[in-house]
Amino acid sequence: MPDLALQAESLLQRFRRVRARTLQLCAGLSAEDMMVQSMPDASPAKWHLAHTTWFFEQFLLGRDAAWRPRHPEWHYLFNSYYQTVGPMHARPRRGLLSRPSLDEVIEYRRYVEAAVETRIETGLGAAEAIVELGLQHEQQHQELLVTDIQHALWCNPLRPAYDPTLAPPSASRVEPLAYVDGQEGVIEIGHAGDGFAFDNEGPRHRAYLQAHALANRLVTNGEYRLFVQDGGYREPTLWLSDGWATVQAEGWERPLYWQADLDSAYGLAGVHELDPAAPVVHLSYFEADAFARWAGARLPTEAEWESAAAAQPVRGNLLDGRPQPPRAAVGEGLLQMYGDAWEWTASPYVSYPGFQPLPGALGEYNGKFMNAQWVLRGGSCATPRDHIRATYRNFFPAQARWQFAGLRLARDR
Amino acid sequence: MPDLALQAESLLQRFRRVRARTLQLCAGLSAEDMMVQSMPDASPAKWHLAHTTWFFEQFLLGRDAAWRPRHPEWHYLFNSYYQTVGPMHARPRRGLLSRPSLDEVIEYRRYVEAAVETRIETGLGAAEAIVELGLQHEQQHQELLVTDIQHALWCNPLRPAYDPTLAPPSASRVEPLAYVDGQEGVIEIGHAGDGFAFDNEGPRHRAYLQAHALANRLVTNGEYRLFVQDGGYREPTLWLSDGWATVQAEGWERPLYWQADLDSAYGLAGVHELDPAAPVVHLSYFEADAFARWAGARLPTEAEWESAAAAQPVRGNLLDGRPQPPRAAVGEGLLQMYGDAWEWTASPYVSYPGFQPLPGALGEYNGKFMNAQWVLRGGSCATPRDHIRATYRNFFPAQARWQFAGLRLARDR
Amino acid sequence: MPDLALQAESLLQRFRRVRARTLQLCAGLSAEDMMVQSMPDASPAKWHLAHTTWFFEQFLLGRDAAWRPRHPEWHYLFNSYYQTVGPMHARPRRGLLSRPSLDEVIEYRRYVEAAVETRIETGLGAAEAIVELGLQHEQQHQELLVTDIQHALWCNPLRPAYDPTLAPPSASRVEPLAYVDGQEGVIEIGHAGDGFAFDNEGPRHRAYLQAHALANRLVTNGEYRLFVQDGGYREPTLWLSDGWATVQAEGWERPLYWQADLDSAYGLAGVHELDPAAPVVHLSYFEADAFARWAGARLPTEAEWESAAAAQPVRGNLLDGRPQPPRAAVGEGLLQMYGDAWEWTASPYVSYPGFQPLPGALGEYNGKFMNAQWVLRGGSCATPRDHIRATYRNFFPAQARWQFAGLRLARDR
Amino acid sequence: MPDLALQAESLLQRFRRVRARTLQLCAGLSAEDMMVQSMPDASPAKWHLAHTTWFFEQFLLGRDAAWRPRHPEWHYLFNSYYQTVGPMHARPRRGLLSRPSLDEVIEYRRYVEAAVETRIETGLGAAEAIVELGLQHEQQHQELLVTDIQHALWCNPLRPAYDPTLAPPSASRVEPLAYVDGQEGVIEIGHAGDGFAFDNEGPRHRAYLQAHALANRLVTNGEYRLFVQDGGYREPTLWLSDGWATVQAEGWERPLYWQADLDSAYGLAGVHELDPAAPVVHLSYFEADAFARWAGARLPTEAEWESAAAAQPVRGNLLDGRPQPPRAAVGEGLLQMYGDAWEWTASPYVSYPGFQPLPGALGEYNGKFMNAQWVLRGGSCATPRDHIRATYRNFFPAQARWQFAGLRLARDR
Repeated sequence: MPDLALQAESLLQRFRRVRARTLQLCAGLSAEDMMVQSMPDASPAKWHLAHTTWFFEQFLLGRDAAWRPRHPEWHYLFNSYYQTVGPMHARPRRGLLSRPSLDEVIEYRRYVEAAVETRIETGLGAAEAIVELGLQHEQQHQELLVTDIQHALWCNPLRPAYDPTLAPPSASRVEPLAYVDGQEGVIEIGHAGDGFAFDNEGPRHRAYLQAHALANRLVTNGEYRLFVQDGGYREPTLWLSDGWATVQAEGWERPLYWQADLDSAYGLAGVHELDPAAPVVHLSYFEADAFARWAGARLPTEAEWESAAAAQPVRGNLLDGRPQPPRAAVGEGLLQMYGDAWEWTASPYVSYPGFQPLPGALGEYNGKFMNAQWVLRGGSCATPRDHIRATYRNFFPAQARWQFAGLRLARDR
Repeated sequence: MPDLALQAESLLQRFRRVRARTLQLCAGLSAEDMMVQSMPDASPAKWHLAHTTWFFEQFLLGRDAAWRPRHPEWHYLFNSYYQTVGPMHARPRRGLLSRPSLDEVIEYRRYVEAAVETRIETGLGAAEAIVELGLQHEQQHQELLVTDIQHALWCNPLRPAYDPTLAPPSASRVEPLAYVDGQEGVIEIGHAGDGFAFDNEGPRHRAYLQAHALANRLVTNGEYRLFVQDGGYREPTLWLSDGWATVQAEGWERPLYWQADLDSAYGLAGVHELDPAAPVVHLSYFEADAFARWAGARLPTEAEWESAAAAQPVRGNLLDGRPQPPRAAVGEGLLQMYGDAWEWTASPYVSYPGFQPLPGALGEYNGKFMNAQWVLRGGSCATPRDHIRATYRNFFPAQARWQFAGLRLARDR
Repeated sequence: MPDLALQAESLLQRFRRVRARTLQLCAGLSAEDMMVQSMPDASPAKWHLAHTTWFFEQFLLGRDAAWRPRHPEWHYLFNSYYQTVGPMHARPRRGLLSRPSLDEVIEYRRYVEAAVETRIETGLGAAEAIVELGLQHEQQHQELLVTDIQHALWCNPLRPAYDPTLAPPSASRVEPLAYVDGQEGVIEIGHAGDGFAFDNEGPRHRAYLQAHALANRLVTNGEYRLFVQDGGYREPTLWLSDGWATVQAEGWERPLYWQADLDSAYGLAGVHELDPAAPVVHLSYFEADAFARWAGARLPTEAEWESAAAAQPVRGNLLDGRPQPPRAAVGEGLLQMYGDAWEWTASPYVSYPGFQPLPGALGEYNGKFMNAQWVLRGGSCATPRDHIRATYRNFFPAQARWQFAGLRLARDR
Repeated sequence: MPDLALQAESLLQRFRRVRARTLQLCAGLSAEDMMVQSMPDASPAKWHLAHTTWFFEQFLLGRDAAWRPRHPEWHYLFNSYYQTVGPMHARPRRGLLSRPSLDEVIEYRRYVEAAVETRIETGLGAAEAIVELGLQHEQQHQELLVTDIQHALWCNPLRPAYDPTLAPPSASRVEPLAYVDGQEGVIEIGHAGDGFAFDNEGPRHRAYLQAHALANRLVTNGEYRLFVQDGGYREPTLWLSDGWATVQAEGWERPLYWQADLDSAYGLAGVHELDPAAPVVHLSYFEADAFARWAGARLPTEAEWESAAAAQPVRGNLLDGRPQPPRAAVGEGLLQMYGDAWEWTASPYVSYPGFQPLPGALGEYNGKFMNAQWVLRGGSCATPRDHIRATYRNFFPAQARWQFAGLRLARDR
């Protein structure tokens, strides 16, 4: 059965590649950098390294009753939110964990990796799906690791760069804004078939699309700057009520990381000039929604987005090695559907009709967060290339700004 | 033109009836009772009386450039959230307004009513829609007045009754739970045509319904008590993550107003025995959702609900004079679709495709609240009978408990 | 024994006079006004009326085992902070108590008064001290009633007056500032002897005074305005660290109730012109301390103050009927030692050597508040004339501003 | 002038010794450990290292107009609270500073040390007092470094030890409690003369002591355990009002670091058995005060304490190299006046008569904290031996628990 051997080997290679990528994203960071938790929503890089490892230990290795964790006391520290498998360290206090040290966590990674690799080599059977889930999970944390460390370093008044070589282009050409008609009528969205998908991407089901059109590309820094300069942050009627309250309470005057001159911003490369042609990122839903209203347009629904995206290959500025800054769109048709920036949609994050969470503790993965969040689609420059797909549903509450999140305009036809 | 005269007279009668009903709901309350603001979400009864009057003054009388408010300084006090017409008194501080006095507010009501009546009698033209909106607005505040005063009085350790004659039945018969199949495929929902509707009820549009069934009646106190007794409030996997956090933070162990014995509850009549057959009320979305999960069912979507409700006349335990306690359902088919208790749906409160807010300040009425709220349908025992309809969309955040809100189960077919 | 009869009659008269005075201070206030609780530190006027009555019931009438309270359920509502006699309604929620109504509270006052009067007439014995304590307690609440209602009405954007006839003078003459030498060496302070004093005023004990001098009068509005105009609220080095943090957090720019023009202020008579010659009031300790530092002086200690005050009769602008606004000092020697404004001292509120709290629940009256508060001396325009004395120790935390509190400068000699 | 040379050399040696001691206290800690800020009151160890260095740079080296800081941008990070020299990084965010790294901070220490040593060698003149102040300042931070790191490590559920070799004795002998009479009458306290003292220790002045006696030793763990077992934490009448509120709000049931069994506690050596004979530490003022009340005694005033301590040499369990756990007192007379545990006194932290803060920015060192804090006396096992003296005044707010703070009983005679 050469095919099975080939498949096992392939999963092993993939396992090694994904795990190595996580560490690669930490290159240049000190143990101290990897301790910082700048807000309750974010986690220290070291915690990401440990938690993604714990995930494999808990849900794959722990299936074997004979498995003896080397550090059973770490279970409490690195369980994120799985109530089913026991209590956990309070999320806002992850930044206090100087122990285990970074070195111990890396050693822990190696130890668990060796065991997982042995399991893969000896044959997983049904547990193969757990390895795949663990890898997809790790890829989600790769993106969070990047966005969390950017926020952590930005909180330091010295504004250190994550990587000074990642400077964005400074004034590129961009495709003029145009609208592309979308489908109307009954369509199907959601995952079906053999490839991996999270439980919240299914089941595939019918939905009805109204006549509509989508913008050919993401909104740019230059366009968003006009909104700011036009007094967008001072005009309550452009905002949702909760959004306006947030603007007032937080003193928002521009996107997160933009400097007061509106010409420069903090990013992974430190403070740099803004490229007016590149997509605006680090917006909250409130800002995306207010911009769309100001522009006389609206945000797309996730069904509108998916029905358009499903026709495209996954191609764009996604994460291959080190994250590359968002860049201007040039070309024909619908551009930037994948990569560069997550696109806030007009769709709240709720279950699809017939949704079934995974059985057991893994059922806590997605379903329990279906309140007061909005769906984002398409992945960003920090999303691993082999992690995104047309059916992928990301979600954040309306005020979250530290992701690479922007918007595409839509309108009724 | 006898028709127009008839119509004007009819609107006048309706205006007088609705306005009188508001005061009637305050019978038995002292000026002190009508001062209490028990939480930022609620308003004092006196404030409701004044704000609903200000609404007519601001949006109807104020259209006449010659109108001179008798109390221009009250504008700031009784503007609720209309940024377009100026700044406003902070919502959580409404309970500090001992001035104007209740007598002055009642005098203000009469003064504005006289002016509105004159306007109606002399002919309103296009402004007729404003009077209708003002009346619908006032009816919404009638329900809030009832639920707010119930909460206010409950906060008093003496647990005074709003009206001791409103005692609920104590052990009635209820129809056994059964499921009724709903429509599948493309349907239409939303308001169209001539009758009044809020902007958020339209436009009428197509939606796709999956195969499903709705329970024939609301969940009862007796059924909900089983959930409590089964440890529902101690089992995190039954809850949304935000819901579980709320249960922990607030120490929830049962519905708002229930006593620890699970046999009695505070209500408009004071503390009374619970009728196991009557619908459970004063649930948050979190509790409704958790109960449905425990019961192996789910909440209906608003489209499922509306498609079923549209086929029924508006009939049920609604507000005619004084609010009547929720009561057990007996009969055939889908029962309690209107009245008794608002039904939490599985639908977040967002705009319909093609939604257009009203022009001007009235555009702030509904649209700006479309974040982090869930839709409720069908009205309650505190909803005026001529205020509810199949397309009506009520909305509250997931943690709100002080409304007459319960649930109907649904399931996939 | 005609003397005893006379004494009993005299206490009776005093009881009636003090109790009537409390109601007299409520003249002009509506039941709604008397409901308002504008901050957790303040109480509604109605609550003051009830609590002072409860005090007599609990500590005098309740000594008789046969006493049957008419409203035992009110005990929980009107116990302020006496843990020894049971749990109590949360202080910040006193403003929610629409029931009992004002009328019921006034009836309660009459009912308890009749019983107390009967007790006085039949002879109290040792319990006479309880009546005296109850009256002193009620007088303290008279002052709080005035300062609390002023704050409550000020929180209303309509800025209603407590009594428009109480307007302050607008530009009077004031004695030039001069310093009067105080005693040096071992002195005695504190209460001894037969007259009434609170437990915290004793025991009388020796203390050592350094060479010092006291200003002949209180600091005026005009002097304080110079401090404001000189940038006093923008210069951190003038402030205690906690004070500067409060200035920043609260946005303080001038005394509470002053208007931005520095020429007018809200007061019991509503908004009125400031008299530059009248004493500045409504200062926090932080402001008094910062002003003194700016002026190159310091606050007096309570021992310095008392040693000077003990030589003077109690004379000044104190409360006789309705509160009279603070007024300018004219004359010789140490002026305004009593009345007009409480004087913040440089002394934290701690026990005197050998301090013994009253036995039982009444021991909770004063002693348990000896943390993080400062002593104020001398009484204000809202302090009943027969309530103040040289040994009297008032106390508030450093940030409290809503009392009639000002300052007198002192310096080392 | 051989004397001057000798003096300069001696200061140099002392400078080197104190600076080296700070680093020595960090032995065994990782860069990650030294990042942790477990609460706003505490600072990361790395921050202590940098701030104490900044102090020398700012106040000594910066006096030379030609001085060019190598890292001028660090000024903002390591200024603690000196408003006079510019704005500063927010205190609760010190734990976010992964940059500069520990290595860079240590390099910074060396760089500044070299410059200071050169200054010392070339002759300081009047600036010698600044060096001395900088060393005393550094010694204060040595103690904070120890108490802060203990708290930081305790916040980690793994409960790592600071140094497992520091285990306390487990059941030693202790001197029976006895009272020693103190002085009565006019005494003098406060610093005078040539040795170093902080500004708040002077001027020396007269005070009056009542007749009193002091306990011969500190209260022990065993004695405090009796208080806990007797329900001390459940009896409101033993507590100050603010203390009881804190007990309720924080759920206090025993001293910080004690385990629920009342037999073991977390300490610098990790979790260990409690020695009933050793002094109880990690008490708040509220707990010390409540214990004294329960014991029928009181806390000493700082004048009582100083008048007794001044007669003794500085001798006790103080910090010489690594901190040694508090240990039982054996011997005659007043024991443990220095070392083992800071003693909460009954004296609020206020200025002495005639107090003059240091000129300029250094005037912010002590004086501005004179609100809502209590004085502690005598030093602890974490106080450098050559840092403590009879006149030394430490101060903390009443709820602070993470210091080595205990109590000595006192009583009136």
